[in-house]
Amino acid sequence: MPVSPGASLATLRERKPLVHQITNYVVMNETANATLALGALPVMAHAPQEVEEMAGLASALVINIGTLSEHWIEAMLLAGRAAGARAIPIVVDPVGAGATRYRTETAKRLLEELDVTVLRGNAGEIATLVGVEAEVRGVESIGGAGDPAGLAREAARSLGVIASVTGAVDHVSDGSRVLAVANGHDLLATVSGTGCMSTAITGCFLAVKPGDPLEAAAEALAAFGVAGEDAAVGAKGPGTFHAGLYDALAGLDPATLDGRARISET
Amino acid sequence: MPVSPGASLATLRERKPLVHQITNYVVMNETANATLALGALPVMAHAPQEVEEMAGLASALVINIGTLSEHWIEAMLLAGRAAGARAIPIVVDPVGAGATRYRTETAKRLLEELDVTVLRGNAGEIATLVGVEAEVRGVESIGGAGDPAGLAREAARSLGVIASVTGAVDHVSDGSRVLAVANGHDLLATVSGTGCMSTAITGCFLAVKPGDPLEAAAEALAAFGVAGEDAAVGAKGPGTFHAGLYDALAGLDPATLDGRARISET
Amino acid sequence: MPVSPGASLATLRERKPLVHQITNYVVMNETANATLALGALPVMAHAPQEVEEMAGLASALVINIGTLSEHWIEAMLLAGRAAGARAIPIVVDPVGAGATRYRTETAKRLLEELDVTVLRGNAGEIATLVGVEAEVRGVESIGGAGDPAGLAREAARSLGVIASVTGAVDHVSDGSRVLAVANGHDLLATVSGTGCMSTAITGCFLAVKPGDPLEAAAEALAAFGVAGEDAAVGAKGPGTFHAGLYDALAGLDPATLDGRARISET
Repeated sequence: MPVSPGASLATLRERKPLVHQITNYVVMNETANATLALGALPVMAHAPQEVEEMAGLASALVINIGTLSEHWIEAMLLAGRAAGARAIPIVVDPVGAGATRYRTETAKRLLEELDVTVLRGNAGEIATLVGVEAEVRGVESIGGAGDPAGLAREAARSLGVIASVTGAVDHVSDGSRVLAVANGHDLLATVSGTGCMSTAITGCFLAVKPGDPLEAAAEALAAFGVAGEDAAVGAKGPGTFHAGLYDALAGLDPATLDGRARISET
Repeated sequence: MPVSPGASLATLRERKPLVHQITNYVVMNETANATLALGALPVMAHAPQEVEEMAGLASALVINIGTLSEHWIEAMLLAGRAAGARAIPIVVDPVGAGATRYRTETAKRLLEELDVTVLRGNAGEIATLVGVEAEVRGVESIGGAGDPAGLAREAARSLGVIASVTGAVDHVSDGSRVLAVANGHDLLATVSGTGCMSTAITGCFLAVKPGDPLEAAAEALAAFGVAGEDAAVGAKGPGTFHAGLYDALAGLDPATLDGRARISET
Repeated sequence: MPVSPGASLATLRERKPLVHQITNYVVMNETANATLALGALPVMAHAPQEVEEMAGLASALVINIGTLSEHWIEAMLLAGRAAGARAIPIVVDPVGAGATRYRTETAKRLLEELDVTVLRGNAGEIATLVGVEAEVRGVESIGGAGDPAGLAREAARSLGVIASVTGAVDHVSDGSRVLAVANGHDLLATVSGTGCMSTAITGCFLAVKPGDPLEAAAEALAAFGVAGEDAAVGAKGPGTFHAGLYDALAGLDPATLDGRARISET
């Protein structure tokens, strides 16, 4: 399977995979709508009574720690184990790891206890999880990783995951290969939850390309980045950009997406 | 009282009824804004300490099981009993019934323990609750009911509610009469939570026409469908359609609504 | 420091202060996006395990009781005490005080147990908390305070806070001075959560002007009101206004803001 966000998107629109998301209160509507606009089916469920059943029905599981509490961690672990037992891919978004001990420790616990496929975060969050000094202000990464490609490779090796480090240029690694993704737009940083959306969309691509999570993760970021570029056209600021982002996700054209994707081996 | 969404809407805008909603995390903002745009006053409250008092102040209660957990079910039951004791109409949205046992059982429990006025769901959810085989993928109904009018009638009879089954054409029944509502637009299916909005708006219409819940439920779907038709004009995709939907709800004109409503006795 | 929303906004955009928000489910995305669009960094966190640490990292704490439950009140108290111990300003939004006993009592408890800097509410909510008869329908203030300037002054005196009473004209008082803010637009009342956004933005201004909370609170309302005025231009209703509001917040120009602010000593 070559890197082809267009082919994966075409498959996704045909299959409409169910993507189970246990995510934060701030972005639930946003990630559900991004998933739906792309062409997959989102479902949010967090009760211990149903997460295993729901995860078992899904083609991918998205776990996001943006607004944590104990009951939710329990649900994430239950759902994650159920997904792992059925080889359903799991993407984890360690929102705010590095900002508080609780977030850092929860992210580490998820990585230890679950068979995480992809870890998608910003440079500060990922650096925190591999033990590199990083500044995280709330849920934002401040400053930058000096070497994001190296960070992605190191995170993949030490954490045993596909590491997906997003920033001005995104870097996705399995520990040996590193794919750089140069799509996107500055306006993405002005809307809360676009990082979480990129995680949800990573889940969507994993659902249709579970056998190559490195490429699936890179394709997801390319597709989301292209949608960001399209949404920026005519946007007057964060609000109209935000509305336009769903239009752009729905409007992504599988036939032209590969030509617009800026994915390169580094 | 003839079927007249325009007359009900005019009454609603004059009275601004309070509509208490215990709904899911994904769509809380959306249903609050849809309620407010239409002209009623939404209030979200779920603490056991206040739900009975709040439900008692309201003109309708909306219960939606989209993101369930035990504490929330407890709140739904408390609020529902308080509403029932005061003859305040209750609309229940069994989101995802059929997808997991927990959702199916919770929806059944609400129907058994509360004096539910209207049950508003898609064909898969309603079919599940009347014991008909159905495919529900997450919170979406896959495939279709062969006979949605019959399903609505059967659900109304067997569950003792007004059954409001939404789809390409909606069907609302009290067990004998069936009203079909043919308003709406395909873009409604591309935005997460539009089903939940239709439930909230059903609550708004029940608040002003509690004596005829069959007609109120049909009028609500017609009004919402007309707003969807208006929002589709000029929309470039799900995001601009979503923003336009609130504009359209606020812009609904009571004087012309009856002429645009496509409600028919089947 | 003269009243200058422009100067405060310029400082805010330079410093990008972290504003910790413990708010309601309905508006979390909205207040996060309003904070980000203005130029500050929002973070939502409510777990007892992390709220003290997060509040200690922040430059202001926003507490909003719009969808209460016991665990959240516990978190508000923990975070509020941590903020108080470090002299981090706290703004409280008593959403729905007066509607149910639980909300009224919780708002009073927060005012008693925490060192609240600013209390931002509508006339009905604030009147309830100073013991004046008021009508609150759900979370809306019905009718109006006969004398909002007097209400603000009385609330500030009796509750020991800066009282920020919003309405057609806003009034902010420290118990002696009263600043009236005449910016804003009717469309703000058609979108759920704009009151909550004004509270979040009050937190943003407190973060950069903690030494003069009276002026910071008035400046915040002026800035938000001007953004509302800008968003109304070209809006077709509540939905496009809502999207435009984030554009307008991001587009606020520090250089011209003072000239547009309608803040007056009463």
